[in-house]
Amino acid sequence: MNKKKRVVIALGGNALGNTLPEQMQAVKITAKAIVDLIEEGCEVVVAHGNGPQVGMVNNAMIALTHEDQEQPNTPLSVCVAMSQAYIGYDLQNALREELLNRGITGIPVATMITQVRVDEHDPAFEHPSKPIGKFISAKQAKQMEENFGYMMKEDSGRGYRRVVASPKPVEIVELDTIRTMVDSGNLVIACGGGGIPVVRQGNHLKGASAVIDKDFASCLLAKELDADYLIILTAVEKVALNFGTPEEKWLAHVSIDEAKRYIAEGHFAPGSMLPKVQAAVDFAASKFGRTALITLLEKSRDAVQGKTGTTFRS
Amino acid sequence: MNKKKRVVIALGGNALGNTLPEQMQAVKITAKAIVDLIEEGCEVVVAHGNGPQVGMVNNAMIALTHEDQEQPNTPLSVCVAMSQAYIGYDLQNALREELLNRGITGIPVATMITQVRVDEHDPAFEHPSKPIGKFISAKQAKQMEENFGYMMKEDSGRGYRRVVASPKPVEIVELDTIRTMVDSGNLVIACGGGGIPVVRQGNHLKGASAVIDKDFASCLLAKELDADYLIILTAVEKVALNFGTPEEKWLAHVSIDEAKRYIAEGHFAPGSMLPKVQAAVDFAASKFGRTALITLLEKSRDAVQGKTGTTFRS
Repeated sequence: MNKKKRVVIALGGNALGNTLPEQMQAVKITAKAIVDLIEEGCEVVVAHGNGPQVGMVNNAMIALTHEDQEQPNTPLSVCVAMSQAYIGYDLQNALREELLNRGITGIPVATMITQVRVDEHDPAFEHPSKPIGKFISAKQAKQMEENFGYMMKEDSGRGYRRVVASPKPVEIVELDTIRTMVDSGNLVIACGGGGIPVVRQGNHLKGASAVIDKDFASCLLAKELDADYLIILTAVEKVALNFGTPEEKWLAHVSIDEAKRYIAEGHFAPGSMLPKVQAAVDFAASKFGRTALITLLEKSRDAVQGKTGTTFRS
Repeated sequence: MNKKKRVVIALGGNALGNTLPEQMQAVKITAKAIVDLIEEGCEVVVAHGNGPQVGMVNNAMIALTHEDQEQPNTPLSVCVAMSQAYIGYDLQNALREELLNRGITGIPVATMITQVRVDEHDPAFEHPSKPIGKFISAKQAKQMEENFGYMMKEDSGRGYRRVVASPKPVEIVELDTIRTMVDSGNLVIACGGGGIPVVRQGNHLKGASAVIDKDFASCLLAKELDADYLIILTAVEKVALNFGTPEEKWLAHVSIDEAKRYIAEGHFAPGSMLPKVQAAVDFAASKFGRTALITLLEKSRDAVQGKTGTTFRS
């Protein structure tokens, strides 16, 4: 038998649903796709986003301050931590159950609370861009700005959302532990929501008011774990040039140079496909033999088999 | 050098503060005591309670439903999960910092989201007894009962609190992973808040509306990890007979038989010292050579050295 392929898979926060009942359904489907990869002979590490979830936790902690004056507002970093458990608990359960349903034993599933260090001078702190949480009215948005100093932005006519900084991940603080767990055969959920963002102050790690892009965090995790594959899941089976136009062209195999040219030509939407392609290119270019895939959750197995998805390889 | 003594230490939720600023201070003191034990040559595993914290998370999730009708109420098991991250993130950071401050490297610190299985027929489900969260007025308590079906109880003239079931822990679901991490030299935080309570339904684990006593969960963890010591922290340096009376007598060394007699004689308050002594006896009686200690956080090192605390040994 060949050596197992190590795969880091990056789930979208949106794929996990907007409420707990939605999440509990969504993780079942996610678990099937991940266990498909395990049956395919892959050693899988799971990372995931948390856009809707961290927004919900943030809103809950704000709602608490409205009802309980003694409760100080909760920093975003703590909300990210809580979202890791909120998602990880359901996800690890669904994975455990799916493994058992298929008669696969001996693969313990575990969620690691993960901090990811960012640079306090990252320019992203000057330009908050990542929307989190629910859409709210202009009036509610103004209150949030006044009461908490949040930055709120109107988003495509659907209302206002909080926008936060999305700095680049620099270091996964719990990397050694994650590596030990993966090397020991655990199915690990790590870097949830891109990781709890922290900045270094001497020996102290201070929570940062930010949400790290999960695609970049997953890319860093995949590089550090020397993964063979980084699979970035999205809502389309393949990446397209001229997406949504008559000249739309679906991509199967993309070289690093081609991908960089497509990025420069503006083919990919910022905050959506662009970070995915950037993370894919970063991973594939980092070492010979590394492959990044962008595809649909349910096509993950086929993509690893080379049958579909967009493949980035140097 | 002797083989390292393996120590499971059970922190009280109350020792972690009632708010985030309190917690951030409390974990610094806790970290010092734990790193003292590591300097003493112990291999430490940290478990902790979550009484105030899970109550706060529960209140936040309820407050969210008041402001956002689309949000369903969040089950208590999910609140426990969130409290593990809320506490674990701060605690692991403080431990990491204290280790680095003392020049100790090579001990990664990690928080594991931990589920603990309970028996769905545990009689505790019929008799909710564990108070969580803040004290509220009779009127507010009535609303909680009506809106969420919670059981509310008046508590020693200080107001009403929600009471939940506190079933016995049966199995630590993520035990294999925790053992791997501890055996690999990680400083692990596990079974936070007594663990996320789940019941088995075939291959599925269903969250239970309960909070497991952290002393019992820590005892189970210590037995399963074959620990040498279980240290249960409390607000007094030693356990007393006739506590708070003129006949008060502080205990240094207690045999299993003596402890059982003292329990039967009603020396220890239910929900307070009683579960601690019960957990201590359970651990000490489980295997020859195992020692349980009940003492103050700041006396942990002295207690392991045999200088103070109440020692339970078979």
